Amino acid sequence: MSASRGRGRPRDPQTDTAILEAALELFVERGVEGISIEQVAKRAGVGKPTVYRRWSTKEDLIAQAIEQWVAAEVTPSAADVYALPLRDIVEGVLPAAAETAASPAFRALVARIMGSAVSHPSLMAVYWRHYIVPRRQLAAAMLQRAQADGTLAPDTDLDVLIDMMAGAVTYRVLQPDPPDAAGMLRYLTAVYRQAGLYPPAHDSP
Amino acid sequence: MSASRGRGRPRDPQTDTAILEAALELFVERGVEGISIEQVAKRAGVGKPTVYRRWSTKEDLIAQAIEQWVAAEVTPSAADVYALPLRDIVEGVLPAAAETAASPAFRALVARIMGSAVSHPSLMAVYWRHYIVPRRQLAAAMLQRAQADGTLAPDTDLDVLIDMMAGAVTYRVLQPDPPDAAGMLRYLTAVYRQAGLYPPAHDSP
Repeated sequence: MSASRGRGRPRDPQTDTAILEAALELFVERGVEGISIEQVAKRAGVGKPTVYRRWSTKEDLIAQAIEQWVAAEVTPSAADVYALPLRDIVEGVLPAAAETAASPAFRALVARIMGSAVSHPSLMAVYWRHYIVPRRQLAAAMLQRAQADGTLAPDTDLDVLIDMMAGAVTYRVLQPDPPDAAGMLRYLTAVYRQAGLYPPAHDSP
Repeated sequence: MSASRGRGRPRDPQTDTAILEAALELFVERGVEGISIEQVAKRAGVGKPTVYRRWSTKEDLIAQAIEQWVAAEVTPSAADVYALPLRDIVEGVLPAAAETAASPAFRALVARIMGSAVSHPSLMAVYWRHYIVPRRQLAAAMLQRAQADGTLAPDTDLDVLIDMMAGAVTYRVLQPDPPDAAGMLRYLTAVYRQAGLYPPAHDSP
């Protein structure tokens, strides 16, 4: 499969980056079924063997491209959620979340990942592990804080409530006529308020 | 495009059905990008011109296949939501909803429609109009009933709350390791309860 395997030449990180970027672009444009390793190689400006030397299937390649794209530390840390009033935490988190949720690139990627959830579950799995799980942990910390503060019922099913919050956003993002960043900020505020995470000032205890 | 157009031969409804079924199957298996009119014709056992005589693009064809698949009356009607105690309405609605949400065919179709939300928005639009909107109207009627009953806050943003309910289910369906029908019924019950639509007996007013 690879003429140069074993030559001992070190892998070029720039080549890896070019391949991963090309794979993500094509995945977003055409879906898993619409692309081939050959097309990825062409767009990255490398030969097919160069791609196959690194990834044996297009699914593996797309999974790593997704992992790389979504890998960024989630802030605040769960511990920091207890350092400030919850309202400040929420107000600190929402603008960046709204910016991301309203961006066309995020929308297009989420659509494709959801779209391959049944046919190529490894893509959803990598997105789930690297993007969703850290954010669910942050949401859980905020909700537990709200329970500790007495603003959220102690018997709330947090997993279900987190699904409702995250699900609403995903769902809104993929609806016809998605909001821009300002509209998404209003939307997220309404979702957090409905979840009991962001009471209007006059409802605060 | 069609050798026999204008012959005056009536269209055969069974042929239409076979083409629509083949289109839906292939769409679910491979996504929009993974299929061609030629493959649909082959699976339906007809010639390509027979398909093109009826649908000019694969997107139109898939849209109609989706419309046909999801077209079924939503019960109860919004008016009937006021005829019984809300708890009975909810308990009447949930088992069938759980059955649908847990079915592999529904899961696979929803994944594909979400997946094409950005690349082929007409498919999401037809699903939205024919499947989602009537169900949102029912949910809105139930929530308004809950407001009238005094169990849901009068200033609740119903659109956001409906997104949270529907979004949670869509989101849960597409997660790795989706629940079976019994698990989905428990899940839906928890979502309805969190939404304030299904209070535990001791919380009832």
